[in-house]
Amino acid sequence: MKLTKKPVTGMKDILPREMEIRNYVIGLINDTYSKFGFTPIETPCVEHIENLNSKQGGENEKLIFKVLKRGEKLKLSEAKTEADLVDSGLRYDLTLPLSRFYANNASELPSPFKALQTGNVFRADRPQRGRFRQFRQCDIDILGESSYLAEIELILATTTLLGKLDFHNFTIRINDRRILKAMAAYSGFPEESYDEVFIILDKMDKIGMEGVEKELIESGYAKDSVDKYLELFRIITPDAAGVQTAKEKLDGFLNPVYADDLITIINSVEAVRTADFRMAFDPTLVRGMSYYTGPIFEISMDEYGGSVGGGGRYDEMVGKFIGQSVPAVGFSIGFERIIMLLLERGFQVPGSAVKKAYLVEKKCSSEKIQEIVRKAMQERAEGKTVNLLVMKKNKKFQKDQLTEEGYTEIEEVFAN
Amino acid sequence: MKLTKKPVTGMKDILPREMEIRNYVIGLINDTYSKFGFTPIETPCVEHIENLNSKQGGENEKLIFKVLKRGEKLKLSEAKTEADLVDSGLRYDLTLPLSRFYANNASELPSPFKALQTGNVFRADRPQRGRFRQFRQCDIDILGESSYLAEIELILATTTLLGKLDFHNFTIRINDRRILKAMAAYSGFPEESYDEVFIILDKMDKIGMEGVEKELIESGYAKDSVDKYLELFRIITPDAAGVQTAKEKLDGFLNPVYADDLITIINSVEAVRTADFRMAFDPTLVRGMSYYTGPIFEISMDEYGGSVGGGGRYDEMVGKFIGQSVPAVGFSIGFERIIMLLLERGFQVPGSAVKKAYLVEKKCSSEKIQEIVRKAMQERAEGKTVNLLVMKKNKKFQKDQLTEEGYTEIEEVFAN
Repeated sequence: MKLTKKPVTGMKDILPREMEIRNYVIGLINDTYSKFGFTPIETPCVEHIENLNSKQGGENEKLIFKVLKRGEKLKLSEAKTEADLVDSGLRYDLTLPLSRFYANNASELPSPFKALQTGNVFRADRPQRGRFRQFRQCDIDILGESSYLAEIELILATTTLLGKLDFHNFTIRINDRRILKAMAAYSGFPEESYDEVFIILDKMDKIGMEGVEKELIESGYAKDSVDKYLELFRIITPDAAGVQTAKEKLDGFLNPVYADDLITIINSVEAVRTADFRMAFDPTLVRGMSYYTGPIFEISMDEYGGSVGGGGRYDEMVGKFIGQSVPAVGFSIGFERIIMLLLERGFQVPGSAVKKAYLVEKKCSSEKIQEIVRKAMQERAEGKTVNLLVMKKNKKFQKDQLTEEGYTEIEEVFAN
Repeated sequence: MKLTKKPVTGMKDILPREMEIRNYVIGLINDTYSKFGFTPIETPCVEHIENLNSKQGGENEKLIFKVLKRGEKLKLSEAKTEADLVDSGLRYDLTLPLSRFYANNASELPSPFKALQTGNVFRADRPQRGRFRQFRQCDIDILGESSYLAEIELILATTTLLGKLDFHNFTIRINDRRILKAMAAYSGFPEESYDEVFIILDKMDKIGMEGVEKELIESGYAKDSVDKYLELFRIITPDAAGVQTAKEKLDGFLNPVYADDLITIINSVEAVRTADFRMAFDPTLVRGMSYYTGPIFEISMDEYGGSVGGGGRYDEMVGKFIGQSVPAVGFSIGFERIIMLLLERGFQVPGSAVKKAYLVEKKCSSEKIQEIVRKAMQERAEGKTVNLLVMKKNKKFQKDQLTEEGYTEIEEVFAN
């Protein structure tokens, strides 16, 4: 019987060259974020199906890999729908499991709790280039802190990490869901239509001001509202002064504290940033997930078209588990995109060890073998990477292959 | 709606204290094994159901978490058995996915290929203390190398790692499936009964020589065979000399090269070992998996009753995928058991950073906040862990909590 060689549809095998970069980045993530007081946690890949289906996951809930019930609990003949067959599924993000984790372990956790998670998530998306059904996410979250200090810490931690990976000239776009709503209210859109308005607004970077105007009008919104709305985007500049403008224009529609906090976040981060990036107030930034309640942010990078990370405040989600409101804010970097960019850039893991290989002739005595193993162990203890290999007939090919793998020292060991 | 707080049955949330140790051990694993020329790979957690069910997994095949088909492929009304509902499942080990990986990527991999994998595996075992349904495995394997050099390298790499984790006085028990079979053949057991004989033999450490004798007789084996068999275990000493004895006694039943190779493995490892352990020839060592074809080994530790790792040669498995035989040998450490032992021992991650916390009074101006954030960023760049927190009303409790988390410097920042 021959077995199936390819991975399951949409998932991938990761080869050593990529894995070495991934491990390096994971190490840097742990190291960098721990300096900001984040502590690592892990949740299972498998989650209760009722939690996954609880409307916290938006569109992702349509993409769940569901896990079949086992043993007596599986009653196939009685099953009427899919729901009768499954009791759990693979997590589609790390935010929902974090909320469950916090609810489950709050008594043992400090307050505020600064969590760091990296782990695989699973989405049964339509397979497409560069998008996989299993991929790694990397989130930092602060739970139990309502002050903007949390947002400042998250943005500084994330940008410090990107700086250490030698990313330059990127932008942290920031907005606040409450400003977003106040702008819609100020313009006279009915509250029940906000979500639709934001979906159109979200296309601004693709279809431009005229496109947004056209779609809003076509969707039947009052010309007056549309004009008032778009005028705001024309006058608001992409900086702290722009937030000030918004605050003044939205008087009566927006608690001015939210604008002041946003200004403080922008100014504080700009003032102390260690990496090469800028903060930009972007009143068109929407962020899809309905659970966001306050500031939202996204990383834009010139060398990559889309977003390479994002996050925001979600003060209501943890309450769904714990029964009482817990302020929360998180920032997720697009781990897979960052790895892709590093690979494209020909990134080399810094500080790799010198690599030495011994090619040992097959008929060497066991005494000779022992002598070489002893030398190898000595060199490993000194920090070298040392590989012991049986010498092949095609020695030239073997040496070429080792050179390609980065072995700079090759020593041949003969029986006599 | 309140959601479910507990993880799914049999899986666990991992809190920061344990995660910090896990991350440290994973870092040490990557670092140590890379010095031996092992390179990291990753395979998906989800695997084809036909691969998982291919009889390579022994008892584990009964414990598979199966993943429901999706979309049009799921035809609930037509489904007659469980098999009609699923197309994949969660991997129960890393060996089967490695074989698939090698078959899928052989053209891009060096030969021999020294693979390092750490990752979660899933088994729907009956939940019990200390045994979880999701747990991390850590395997090193050498594919494409038939020489005993591979066994030597695997044992040295594994024991070096354990030594770095400050484990002492442990034993690597080693045997060879072919010696195991030769001993049964020499004693006159019929070939089709070997598996049953080995299952009884495997209980030697629990029920002793008398117990094994009793069970063999009760199972209907000839008294002559049983006597001859047990006599072997009486005369064979647990060292290289014991292998020599076995070789001589089993003349005609065992290719003497297998014994000589085992002696070389034992002597070479003993001669160059860097950690505090001993090699022991154990002719009662069976290792459950039917795929083993040559040397097999297991780690015994006095401070822990059972095995904390094991492995062996499995020269036939990769051939099931690739259609041609590829020699392979692997060594897996019991990652979860090692973490448990470290936790019980009160293990402290070495070289942790100094931890400092700023408690910032809530009414501080944004200028004051900026000043503190700037100081914190400076100290982080210098290598400290720095946490910025809003000062709480119950400041004493907050400080006590921080001290417990290892913060040795706490600075209070007031508005005036």
